Amino acid sequence: MAMTGVLRPGFAQIRVLDMEKALEHYTKRVGLHEVTRGGDGRVYLKAADEFDHHSLVLREADRAGIDVAGFKVASEADLDALEKRVSAFGYPVEHVPAGEQPGLGRRIGFTVCTGHRIELYAHADLSDPKPPTHNPDVWDVEPHGMRVRRFDHVLLLGPDIDKALDFFEKVLDFRCTERVDTPDGLTAVFLSCGMKAHDIAFVKFGEPAKLHHVSFELESWADIGHAADIITRYDISHDIGPTRHGLTQGRTIYFFDPSGNRNEVFTGDYTYYPDNPTRTWDETQIGKGLFYYERQAPESFLNVMT
Amino acid sequence: MAMTGVLRPGFAQIRVLDMEKALEHYTKRVGLHEVTRGGDGRVYLKAADEFDHHSLVLREADRAGIDVAGFKVASEADLDALEKRVSAFGYPVEHVPAGEQPGLGRRIGFTVCTGHRIELYAHADLSDPKPPTHNPDVWDVEPHGMRVRRFDHVLLLGPDIDKALDFFEKVLDFRCTERVDTPDGLTAVFLSCGMKAHDIAFVKFGEPAKLHHVSFELESWADIGHAADIITRYDISHDIGPTRHGLTQGRTIYFFDPSGNRNEVFTGDYTYYPDNPTRTWDETQIGKGLFYYERQAPESFLNVMT
Amino acid sequence: MAMTGVLRPGFAQIRVLDMEKALEHYTKRVGLHEVTRGGDGRVYLKAADEFDHHSLVLREADRAGIDVAGFKVASEADLDALEKRVSAFGYPVEHVPAGEQPGLGRRIGFTVCTGHRIELYAHADLSDPKPPTHNPDVWDVEPHGMRVRRFDHVLLLGPDIDKALDFFEKVLDFRCTERVDTPDGLTAVFLSCGMKAHDIAFVKFGEPAKLHHVSFELESWADIGHAADIITRYDISHDIGPTRHGLTQGRTIYFFDPSGNRNEVFTGDYTYYPDNPTRTWDETQIGKGLFYYERQAPESFLNVMT
Amino acid sequence: MAMTGVLRPGFAQIRVLDMEKALEHYTKRVGLHEVTRGGDGRVYLKAADEFDHHSLVLREADRAGIDVAGFKVASEADLDALEKRVSAFGYPVEHVPAGEQPGLGRRIGFTVCTGHRIELYAHADLSDPKPPTHNPDVWDVEPHGMRVRRFDHVLLLGPDIDKALDFFEKVLDFRCTERVDTPDGLTAVFLSCGMKAHDIAFVKFGEPAKLHHVSFELESWADIGHAADIITRYDISHDIGPTRHGLTQGRTIYFFDPSGNRNEVFTGDYTYYPDNPTRTWDETQIGKGLFYYERQAPESFLNVMT
Repeated sequence: MAMTGVLRPGFAQIRVLDMEKALEHYTKRVGLHEVTRGGDGRVYLKAADEFDHHSLVLREADRAGIDVAGFKVASEADLDALEKRVSAFGYPVEHVPAGEQPGLGRRIGFTVCTGHRIELYAHADLSDPKPPTHNPDVWDVEPHGMRVRRFDHVLLLGPDIDKALDFFEKVLDFRCTERVDTPDGLTAVFLSCGMKAHDIAFVKFGEPAKLHHVSFELESWADIGHAADIITRYDISHDIGPTRHGLTQGRTIYFFDPSGNRNEVFTGDYTYYPDNPTRTWDETQIGKGLFYYERQAPESFLNVMT
Repeated sequence: MAMTGVLRPGFAQIRVLDMEKALEHYTKRVGLHEVTRGGDGRVYLKAADEFDHHSLVLREADRAGIDVAGFKVASEADLDALEKRVSAFGYPVEHVPAGEQPGLGRRIGFTVCTGHRIELYAHADLSDPKPPTHNPDVWDVEPHGMRVRRFDHVLLLGPDIDKALDFFEKVLDFRCTERVDTPDGLTAVFLSCGMKAHDIAFVKFGEPAKLHHVSFELESWADIGHAADIITRYDISHDIGPTRHGLTQGRTIYFFDPSGNRNEVFTGDYTYYPDNPTRTWDETQIGKGLFYYERQAPESFLNVMT
Repeated sequence: MAMTGVLRPGFAQIRVLDMEKALEHYTKRVGLHEVTRGGDGRVYLKAADEFDHHSLVLREADRAGIDVAGFKVASEADLDALEKRVSAFGYPVEHVPAGEQPGLGRRIGFTVCTGHRIELYAHADLSDPKPPTHNPDVWDVEPHGMRVRRFDHVLLLGPDIDKALDFFEKVLDFRCTERVDTPDGLTAVFLSCGMKAHDIAFVKFGEPAKLHHVSFELESWADIGHAADIITRYDISHDIGPTRHGLTQGRTIYFFDPSGNRNEVFTGDYTYYPDNPTRTWDETQIGKGLFYYERQAPESFLNVMT
Repeated sequence: MAMTGVLRPGFAQIRVLDMEKALEHYTKRVGLHEVTRGGDGRVYLKAADEFDHHSLVLREADRAGIDVAGFKVASEADLDALEKRVSAFGYPVEHVPAGEQPGLGRRIGFTVCTGHRIELYAHADLSDPKPPTHNPDVWDVEPHGMRVRRFDHVLLLGPDIDKALDFFEKVLDFRCTERVDTPDGLTAVFLSCGMKAHDIAFVKFGEPAKLHHVSFELESWADIGHAADIITRYDISHDIGPTRHGLTQGRTIYFFDPSGNRNEVFTGDYTYYPDNPTRTWDETQIGKGLFYYERQAPESFLNVMT
């Protein structure tokens, strides 16, 4: 294919209440690597299978949640073209200079109708550890903790998700892989910018700018079981799983970081192509869509967010 | 992303010496479903996770091998544009009318420098079994045999693979994910049209138009083990595996269909993005590239083809 | 070792409300094989990895639950010796003639303090399918449904489990692998007659002769995931899982047969030796003991039984 | 069961050419823990799922191979009784005082007809890390390296394996789970002292006292794949696998320690009971018995030993 525009989720910047506890969680338990610390106290992390400089940014604050979801685009020209389309859609665009996050080029930022800040950028430096490329071993650095391979996506909550769907489809060229329609209207939407079952998802919610979860990808269902063992061994707060989603089919487990931000580690969603039909769900089977085995969601999953 | 042009490997048409034996192999053992039989005796098969009408075409002949590798493109307009680019590259283009294969729209066909016929088409009917799309279960039809999920790719052998690389990159917008360069020059090249580590691969070989293997994707390493049990239980000719490739990292097992065409079932190659560097291999580590655990290839793997 | 006395759980005879629905469940979904039907309507099933004639007996009745848990002993002489010890413990022993269940030799039966009938027998015919023994393949008959490998154990509820523990340890030479002691006294006990983490378990309950679940063993955690897919695809009533027990460490999923009898399929408990210490649990961590990831049990698990 | 006599393989003492290289291999790569070093330079290792003090003893020497295979018996009384039976069989018995290996009680030792020294002992101290026993987590110490769970068995080569079979069956109460008979007579024999498919195995060989491999058990086929990744990443000498044995059905991979001693890590042999038939193999299918997928053994597997 000719693939242009938004390539992938690049980073999430989230707020944590206690940086040292957060770092222990994300590096020792989740299995990320610390890349660098910024002068303003932000800490930059990455998974070993990622080429880009970093994919998770932790910012200490007195309230948990997400600051920004960043997406990498294919070229500076695409970034310019996307800026025009975002502006034309009616969202004011802010310019963030190169280096505001170490290792990233200039970014454009804007707030979508659900209240979330989205950023786009075309350049990321390489940083270690990254996948080897000459006569490469499968890994150079032995996987540790939950053995996550990459930052995968965020699920966000807020109002006006119909308009968010419209924006991501028409302006950012995402595809709607799955949607949930109930008598109350569009309730949830899963969007892909490539061949994954989702690169971002939105769920309708009364309050804007909320984070449901930050998700990391694992190699296998075996690693989901291992992640579960880690969660209990280190008394990490558990939400639900190991289980499977009907929506996207991913095998998954959910838990909370020490600040209360929900994390997911998952594996095995399907391969999506842009000519595939959108999968649709209605209120009769939404339980199965959320959690395929339990066929319902626990209260915590529906009501706890940051 | 905006994804245009060639979306994915759509079908392989291969030659088999005995249709009934071939059908038993591909339906009962490999786990495909028979979709329909054509008036000319060709039989059309598909894997259950595919939306398209079929993905494997068997043609009875007195010599095994591959007739054509078909790729699905995003639109009729893309098909027209690609036709112009193929012609401009110097390959004569032949038109195949809609319905020549049941369920497929018009195709364009041409022979590349390695001697292989490639076809492109923009339309495929749906046929059963296909993934459910409304309140979908993970599967409707219980996986059977080796539990393959999709036809994945072919690996082809022939001369002039430098030119094949050039053609697939410049005309069909594929990306070179990995390449092997030895003192004899470019020896093997892996090409992706999307986010998979490969959608087609070429290995340099003196004789044109040869097939190394047809590959199907499995869910997991557990299913590789199950496929291996099936191979021995039913006395299927085994080549190598379970093992892992250094090239593309896929976990894999190779075997032969009753006509001597090599099959692969594999899982777990990496996710590729168009801004990822090309992985490179040289003659010092090519054994590890071929088979990551054995660090060498058996004679059969290098010398047996159809 | 010299291994004498009770070798293993041999069969469970359970009551079902509708034989045809029960057979569809246990053969097509759970993956057992029907061996034979008796003149009195009982149906005899087995898993493919078992040498003995059958391991599950279904009896149609108007109330679900368990009739008898049968254990195979090493020899007729051991059976005689065990009869004397059971009688000496104070339980009246009943003789069941050979052939009362097709394929089994004479049995002795008695009711233990929890209200459950236990039977012992030294002989079982072979029946098909069974593991091949000359130049054996890993399996002759392709695993189907949930791919269970053997009937593994039952968990029973009733009063006086202290005395049941005493009986199984002193009379039947079982070992206590794990026990749960709370301020209310002994609450649960897991007993092994060999090297498995449990061959039978008792939980304290006010009413006698109750069945908590019948358990079957799977090869792998991957197969637990597949069993879960089957449970939802065929609308089988789900209880809890995929998850893991702290007690015995088994990876597991629970569901109900059409009559309301709870089933478990599980894999991966630890290897036990008779010189291993008994693992002990108290009321502070009993949730983790029950379900290691959730660290609590759902109401249904504690209160629904047959 | 009443389980008396020999309970399990307790330890192997093997010779290594370079202790520091051996320690790096067995602790960092295989995943054992160093327990203690003796005054004579021997180093004592254990796997985390073992209660006993140690299970692998490394002794630096100028020739690789095995010094002794130790088995733990159920009681001091059993040890006395076994000593009488060993002597009566005609093997002189040597007494090794408690503490000759730290943490072990007195041992009796003798040389069997294949030239190997066998030792029996009834007491082992506990040492860390060992499985937790009160409100136990699945593990306290995160698995590392190949994540081995226990020392499992050794396979030994030498002459007169008919007599070895006789000795292990009649004197030590082992059971013959599988045997290979060819026109040359008994070629290989697999023996269990409990419910595992093998606790020791002998293959006929012209030279006495040879070691084929020391084997460690893994949790899963997924961990076999991970072990394979480790073998290549750290340039460990690879023999064969991932593959499966027909004999015992274990899924397996073989490699060499830095001194040339062959190691196996494996998972998933079947559960054996003493009333199960012995599985038999003949020369027509011995390839499949050795390696179920390849249906033949590589030269190295048959000819390289220490």
